[in-house]
Amino acid sequence: MTDTATQTDTQPLDDARAWTEQLQTALDAGDVDAALEQFADDCFWRDLISMTWNLHTAEGKDAVGAMLREVGQGAWPRSIEVTGADEADGETTLDFTFENDTFNGKGIARLRDGRCWTFLTSAQELKDHPEPKGRRRIFGAEHGVNVSKDNWLDRRKARVASFGKDEQPYVLVVGGGQGGIGLGARLKRLGVNALVVDRYPRPGDQWRSRYHSLCLHDPVWYDHLPYLPFPDDWPVFSPKDKIADWLESYVKIMELDYWSSTEAKSAQFDEESGTWEVRVDRDGEEIVLRPTHLVMATGMSGLPNQPEIPGQERFKGDVHHSSKHPGGGPYRGKKAVVIGSNNSAHDICADLWENGADVTMLQRSTTHIVRSDSLMEHVLGPLYSEDAVESGVDHETADLIFASIPYQVLNEFQKPAFDAIREQDKEFYDRLEKAGFMLDFGADDSGLFLKYLRRGSGYYIDIGASDLIASGDIKLVAPAEVKELTQDAVVLTDGTELPADLVVLATGYGSMNGWAAQLIDQDTADRVGKVWGLGSDTPKDPGPWEGELRNMWKPTQVSNLWFHGGNLHQSRHYSKYLAMQLKARQEGMDTPVYALAESHHTG
Amino acid sequence: MTDTATQTDTQPLDDARAWTEQLQTALDAGDVDAALEQFADDCFWRDLISMTWNLHTAEGKDAVGAMLREVGQGAWPRSIEVTGADEADGETTLDFTFENDTFNGKGIARLRDGRCWTFLTSAQELKDHPEPKGRRRIFGAEHGVNVSKDNWLDRRKARVASFGKDEQPYVLVVGGGQGGIGLGARLKRLGVNALVVDRYPRPGDQWRSRYHSLCLHDPVWYDHLPYLPFPDDWPVFSPKDKIADWLESYVKIMELDYWSSTEAKSAQFDEESGTWEVRVDRDGEEIVLRPTHLVMATGMSGLPNQPEIPGQERFKGDVHHSSKHPGGGPYRGKKAVVIGSNNSAHDICADLWENGADVTMLQRSTTHIVRSDSLMEHVLGPLYSEDAVESGVDHETADLIFASIPYQVLNEFQKPAFDAIREQDKEFYDRLEKAGFMLDFGADDSGLFLKYLRRGSGYYIDIGASDLIASGDIKLVAPAEVKELTQDAVVLTDGTELPADLVVLATGYGSMNGWAAQLIDQDTADRVGKVWGLGSDTPKDPGPWEGELRNMWKPTQVSNLWFHGGNLHQSRHYSKYLAMQLKARQEGMDTPVYALAESHHTG
Repeated sequence: MTDTATQTDTQPLDDARAWTEQLQTALDAGDVDAALEQFADDCFWRDLISMTWNLHTAEGKDAVGAMLREVGQGAWPRSIEVTGADEADGETTLDFTFENDTFNGKGIARLRDGRCWTFLTSAQELKDHPEPKGRRRIFGAEHGVNVSKDNWLDRRKARVASFGKDEQPYVLVVGGGQGGIGLGARLKRLGVNALVVDRYPRPGDQWRSRYHSLCLHDPVWYDHLPYLPFPDDWPVFSPKDKIADWLESYVKIMELDYWSSTEAKSAQFDEESGTWEVRVDRDGEEIVLRPTHLVMATGMSGLPNQPEIPGQERFKGDVHHSSKHPGGGPYRGKKAVVIGSNNSAHDICADLWENGADVTMLQRSTTHIVRSDSLMEHVLGPLYSEDAVESGVDHETADLIFASIPYQVLNEFQKPAFDAIREQDKEFYDRLEKAGFMLDFGADDSGLFLKYLRRGSGYYIDIGASDLIASGDIKLVAPAEVKELTQDAVVLTDGTELPADLVVLATGYGSMNGWAAQLIDQDTADRVGKVWGLGSDTPKDPGPWEGELRNMWKPTQVSNLWFHGGNLHQSRHYSKYLAMQLKARQEGMDTPVYALAESHHTG
Repeated sequence: MTDTATQTDTQPLDDARAWTEQLQTALDAGDVDAALEQFADDCFWRDLISMTWNLHTAEGKDAVGAMLREVGQGAWPRSIEVTGADEADGETTLDFTFENDTFNGKGIARLRDGRCWTFLTSAQELKDHPEPKGRRRIFGAEHGVNVSKDNWLDRRKARVASFGKDEQPYVLVVGGGQGGIGLGARLKRLGVNALVVDRYPRPGDQWRSRYHSLCLHDPVWYDHLPYLPFPDDWPVFSPKDKIADWLESYVKIMELDYWSSTEAKSAQFDEESGTWEVRVDRDGEEIVLRPTHLVMATGMSGLPNQPEIPGQERFKGDVHHSSKHPGGGPYRGKKAVVIGSNNSAHDICADLWENGADVTMLQRSTTHIVRSDSLMEHVLGPLYSEDAVESGVDHETADLIFASIPYQVLNEFQKPAFDAIREQDKEFYDRLEKAGFMLDFGADDSGLFLKYLRRGSGYYIDIGASDLIASGDIKLVAPAEVKELTQDAVVLTDGTELPADLVVLATGYGSMNGWAAQLIDQDTADRVGKVWGLGSDTPKDPGPWEGELRNMWKPTQVSNLWFHGGNLHQSRHYSKYLAMQLKARQEGMDTPVYALAESHHTG
């Protein structure tokens, strides 16, 4: 039915259309200089594969001009149509659709004083290979007299029996957690022959195997997988076994080609055939797979950083890395020392305390703490929350809005939110500091998300452990540096001796290219270089500046090798672009990569 | 972002608001006569539990007045807010929200000449017991220092271990097909303690066990289950094994309490305790359940009509009812005679023909045939299609629009669509008649859906078999009446002898109260009376007129006994009202049933 007629201010829309028309006129005329006149000097043009077959942000007019000239007019946006516009603080934000030779796309622009400050173009659909959804969905039933003898189940069974044996996958995805599964679903829908392998017996075991009280730290609105949103009564924070069961159902519903109990043992690229030779152990059977592309989806954390502590061999208790923590159950009444003060350290300290252990946390350097509620309210809320949904911002819209902010200026957007949190939670932070905890808010006070993007570590989203530290229930030594282990204690460099039955090394993880070193070889890992980080020249994110996450979801210096992962929001959103890149290659399309990033740092 | 400002004709909305205000003023004043002035003489007020705790249509001013007076002002709609309005052919259709003492509701009204012709009020939410969704969803994680030792999985396991043993279900749903499952999901969400039992080993086996080439006959937009719509690439017509797997995943995702391999053997109501004693065989173990309410969800078809044919004992081939047909595989090169000419008969004839059998259909009476494509285009399309979705009519909106048409006048809405189909498919129908097929379009030419509602039989949605009949690939004898079977042939009353290796009795099903006779006793089944049908006094739908489907989803003459089922659309939509009726009873609310239907006909 017709809704109530809405009276809206049409000024933003008029402004947006006027600006767009001028840009479109310049682009249609093939006139780069005229197009650049529509941009401010400090402009950003971020492109998600639509022009560049890359994830790339051109920063400044010169870079935008160079990009436009290099990719050629067929890749430029045309038929730009403004779909909405808004104005606030003298800034007009508009969203639009467009197309070019290859893609249908969507974009978002921000105008200041009639010129463009930020511009996003994102590929949404390969024009020649759209997803078979909506009107394009398959028919299912075969009506009439010429029906095949095989039904859906026969065909599915035949596929399962032959795929990876008689028929080689075009793409092998190593790692079947939420990242590999979401990518698998996108590839399946695009008709890319992809096989997902995972070492655990069942999809979701990556979550099931973790500690007993674990729930997701990100809220439900942030966590949807592609194509099948959670029901609207899904808990705000999914318990680990519930999300595990969801992933298992998802694999089945999406008809993924997924091998459980399968460990990738080695891989090498054969230049001549242009395929990888990947040896996998499938439930005890060695199988050689020959995919054209290899995607590492083994988690955005790389291999555990596992420092050798002097005297570790004589320690009589348990020592394990946080990734191997079995849960606090066995440590009731025992003394536990947890080295580290980030997410894992806090979770494990709380878990041990809940299970009746005597727990001491050793903080080695400052840590960013933000209360989960405050994070929801100030940072995630505007895009991922019930409020956002009610105001028409579903998670796909939110993903695009978030992607439209160039990484170079993301801190400007984030800092006010974290300033507000600092003020609102002052009493909380005061209590923590009084207990001796060493706080930070990131290199430029830009808070959690920048820390996550720059280094993927250095923070804790508080869901309760901070209060235990403030109250002294979890003991804290800060700053603390471990000197050695004795038979039954941890000795600090200042001579303090902490009796211990358990030492947990919550000492973080290496770069994802460590997975490539393990599976392929060190040389290949070095050629890829560091994975993750923006090159911000802040702690653990060495420069040079790249302006995109290094080596994630885009071509790397090693051809046919890709890295996929990140949190549920990133996996969901960027799997879209990675899937289209792989689809185009399977179809033999021309995919000239603009501005392929250099590799930096070997680990 | 702000959408484009829309210029709409505000006249329908103004008319709708003016009328609504007058109605509301009368109702707020408690003035039934003034309220009735807003209605046309030939008006209908259909209520889905919001006022009546029943599914009831008051037909005509007197009946509306009687209903209003009886249920009392607290049950009348108040705070009516028009949410949309449209005008066509001098008729204004408006939708609205409302509330009363007990419910938040939605409604749809049609106005002619400023008075109301049809009025629908539907309960959408028990005000005191809303679904825990959206902002009310559970938190999931337990943050802070006072967390319970049990996690989600522990609690789920404990529930599975105790439910039905240490803890009795409040509701027992017999039958775990799509009907029982969808109802189970609604009850689970409302916090009603319900157990669903099904005789098959796995959810979905009801579909898996059927013939090889089967796909749903209704299209995807019509088939969504509650809460979890199919992904947008789901096939138009789901293959049976795919929908079966979906149902199996759905049971898991929705955390239903569902016992597979469980057959209900007997049930009796104990007046003193007010509970049923139901004996079930759970995988060989007899268990006695004591639910307060019993829901039969065993399929809208009752027990098979299985006529004894003279001479059947000497026939050397196979004879089975259509419900037991194993698929055509074993009958390659054999002669098959199928008695009947409705959906099952057509499907089985086509299946046998595809498998290389020599097939003859015996048509005993006229049959309504409609091509699936034409049904989609003319009948379902406006409400359930990609067009509908794109114009903002999702399946839940569609369900309510469809429910807003009183059964008494539904034929007026349907006839023009079927007239159009007859004309468009004239050549198709001519060919069928030329092959001797006896056609009808329902008692008043109102087509398929009325036939379905009145008798649940007498039609075939053509997905190919009709062409096989027209071409003579499937042989047809019409009219045909079977006299007897010999050792190796079917003999007709006109003396024709048809050699046969297989005879399929596609002879339909009895009323659903047959299930009650089988599980409880004949007396109880007789007290319920016929289930299904409107009382239209057309073939197989004897009067008197009831105006709702007899005994479906609403209180019956046997207290604490309910019938649930229908196609996927009906199961989805009406399970909502059935679930709220049961929730209210579990909560001990006052649920005075207005106009409890008399029982009619014993089978």
